[in-house]
Amino acid sequence: MSGQRIIVIGGVAAGMSAASQAKRRQPSAEVVVFERGTRISYGACGMPYNIEDPSRDIEDLVVLTPDQALKRDIELRLRHDVVALDTERRVVTVRNLEAETELEEPYDALVIATGAHAIHLPLPGFDLPGIFHLRNLDHGRLIKSQIAEHSPSKAIVLGAGYVSMEMCNVLTELGLKVQILKNRPRILRGWSEETVAVVVDELNRHGVEIHTGMNITGAEAGTDGNVTALTTDQGPYPTDFILQAVGVQPNVNLAVEAGLRIGETGAIWVDQYQQTSAEGVWAAGDCAEAYHRILRRNVWIPLGTTANKHGRIAGANAIGAGQQFAGVVGTTGFKFFDLEVARSGLGLEQARTEGFEPVWVTIKQQSRAHAYPGASPIQVTLIADGPTGIFLGGEIVGREGAAMRANVLATALASHMTVADLQGLDLIYSPPFAPVWDPVLVAANQLIKKVGRTV
Amino acid sequence: MSGQRIIVIGGVAAGMSAASQAKRRQPSAEVVVFERGTRISYGACGMPYNIEDPSRDIEDLVVLTPDQALKRDIELRLRHDVVALDTERRVVTVRNLEAETELEEPYDALVIATGAHAIHLPLPGFDLPGIFHLRNLDHGRLIKSQIAEHSPSKAIVLGAGYVSMEMCNVLTELGLKVQILKNRPRILRGWSEETVAVVVDELNRHGVEIHTGMNITGAEAGTDGNVTALTTDQGPYPTDFILQAVGVQPNVNLAVEAGLRIGETGAIWVDQYQQTSAEGVWAAGDCAEAYHRILRRNVWIPLGTTANKHGRIAGANAIGAGQQFAGVVGTTGFKFFDLEVARSGLGLEQARTEGFEPVWVTIKQQSRAHAYPGASPIQVTLIADGPTGIFLGGEIVGREGAAMRANVLATALASHMTVADLQGLDLIYSPPFAPVWDPVLVAANQLIKKVGRTV
Repeated sequence: MSGQRIIVIGGVAAGMSAASQAKRRQPSAEVVVFERGTRISYGACGMPYNIEDPSRDIEDLVVLTPDQALKRDIELRLRHDVVALDTERRVVTVRNLEAETELEEPYDALVIATGAHAIHLPLPGFDLPGIFHLRNLDHGRLIKSQIAEHSPSKAIVLGAGYVSMEMCNVLTELGLKVQILKNRPRILRGWSEETVAVVVDELNRHGVEIHTGMNITGAEAGTDGNVTALTTDQGPYPTDFILQAVGVQPNVNLAVEAGLRIGETGAIWVDQYQQTSAEGVWAAGDCAEAYHRILRRNVWIPLGTTANKHGRIAGANAIGAGQQFAGVVGTTGFKFFDLEVARSGLGLEQARTEGFEPVWVTIKQQSRAHAYPGASPIQVTLIADGPTGIFLGGEIVGREGAAMRANVLATALASHMTVADLQGLDLIYSPPFAPVWDPVLVAANQLIKKVGRTV
Repeated sequence: MSGQRIIVIGGVAAGMSAASQAKRRQPSAEVVVFERGTRISYGACGMPYNIEDPSRDIEDLVVLTPDQALKRDIELRLRHDVVALDTERRVVTVRNLEAETELEEPYDALVIATGAHAIHLPLPGFDLPGIFHLRNLDHGRLIKSQIAEHSPSKAIVLGAGYVSMEMCNVLTELGLKVQILKNRPRILRGWSEETVAVVVDELNRHGVEIHTGMNITGAEAGTDGNVTALTTDQGPYPTDFILQAVGVQPNVNLAVEAGLRIGETGAIWVDQYQQTSAEGVWAAGDCAEAYHRILRRNVWIPLGTTANKHGRIAGANAIGAGQQFAGVVGTTGFKFFDLEVARSGLGLEQARTEGFEPVWVTIKQQSRAHAYPGASPIQVTLIADGPTGIFLGGEIVGREGAAMRANVLATALASHMTVADLQGLDLIYSPPFAPVWDPVLVAANQLIKKVGRTV
């Protein structure tokens, strides 16, 4: 029996996972990947750490080369842009960006893995040299060569999410004086005040300034054409390097034009099998929604690990495996300077918005038993639904052991544990790893006193 | 209303937790702690790390001093040995070891927290100077002064459990040449061959020799009275320092003589409220059994963290709180040299003995995304029941992130997850913390292929 023809649109994390999974499960399948760019399967999340080390090539981040993909018998068409999708006839229209030709390609099953793109602020001067995004390898390469060739001394980071925090660290390490500029007063939207306070301390401790409350109006260049200042309604901020990291948006144009259902989040709606509203079409990764296990509906949280899982499931289901995505619980985190910052589940505001009656605690504890050298403070925030005691989410921040402890929260959330369940966990104790009461248990011991009544 | 009179036997982890909890919940209660030794509430698990640093006093490990306990209004009687218990009359007979007098003391509620003791091999010469245990602070002090004053050069460690591994590291760091001697060929009983192989590599890499297969017959002294050799049926092993770390036994004499039920494990039987078979008598810590959540019956796994939890529950229940111990799942671990070694749940042999039909995998993976420097291999072994897919336990060993990942297993075991549940976890991904597929997920992805059929 000859296999099906499976077309995958997009060759990064979700797309290549889907292609590989389909081919592994059905070697007779013809698997074709159309990728608009020149590279496949790279670890975009690793870009800040690569930029920090001028001796490393940005190409180090490529996980799978085209040659390796071909060895898996996956047909790769780089610089091919899928410009139209007809789900009735099961064909896509593909534009060869080199030859400038267009062809129709038929499929039995289609996986859309078109990813997301960085938001460009539509401001005068924002196309100047010296103003960057950080979303794909070309962005990373441009930043590296700018730093190598122009040795900028003052950077402005727009936005205050994970990538911004990581890049504040990287740019500081590379010798730049860094400022974060934001119109709104809060950084790390959706995180607790307690976690944000620790993050702000860490930024300050490393000389990163945070300026908020202005409206950004544009950017100005000097005689060499490179940016020299960010302009705002409160005057100019001199700079020779600007990173726009104000968020991303899903690439859904193709799906919209093909009439696929778009979710309330703005990303492509999928069911728990990653199938879109069209028969024979799956979506995976940053362009697609993901099922949220606590909220029991779709959300859009674009992350590399979810993209890989989505891709694997979409690829399996494209050849009829019928696999279900277990869903996300909102586990995310980052490291910057000496701090690990991690969370899982709902934040306080989100819990309220979703109709819970949250109670919460924040505790500080040492990361190890006092007998073992090298302990450092770790701060745990836990949130529960007051009336039911259901654990809703938590944040952990500290110099060590913070991120891995968020996995305990993620695992507890996956099985809808109560605070009492959390309190009863048999977590590891040994002086090098934890105090006799793990910080998560200390927080649970406190939170349980608030459960059963709302605040 | 005046409170009850609560007597606690034993003033270390479980005992002081019980006393503090009872007093906190019922300030009017009269709480009396009888402790045979001269110290309370010390972190015995920290002794190896204290011994490693000659500049630190062993007293650094005391968590709560008698003065601090008195401030909590807990009545402390050090050097008082409880020699008899009459559960009908609710009195204990207490011997003052200083005054050599005996008194009867009445109680409303009694908490037995008599701990465990190191097993002494009954061999000729095993009372010689230079032969040590490591169970209480006096043992630790003796070892420190022996090393400081006699500068031993060759150590033999008897036994091959956690304390042995930790002490192999410590003694090597202090400049001793270390040998492990065992009659049986396996070290780390109950752990997988795969984990043991990594541990043995680490011992070898640091020059620790492992000798097995001999019967130990005794020890010999030199002219100065200090040990000079361990004797075996295969000849003598010259040494000037021997650590006996062949295991511990619960201190149950008092309970046996009082007619309390002793469990099949040899420790004091308790229900999930930590109550013994006698009305008004609770037991906590290393002298007591603990409920096991997977096996759904009592086990005896003496650990500091369990002792603290037991104590808290026994203390609360002594004043009528009716708290239930959630149980253990067998989470343990240790660090030695550069290796973290951790587990949770059942081992393979244990799973078989308990009537499961285990399937298992062992995988090796990097601890971080390749984009982030400093990754090291991490080995994960997962075990499940073949027919049902229920996750039974796992072991993790590596240079970083191993111990904290065992907490994911512990949390999964607490809610009786299947391998599919484990595979669906939304664990954290960021290059400094984990690869895009966390090692635990990689192992689950492999193990799921074996579930549904037994091997």
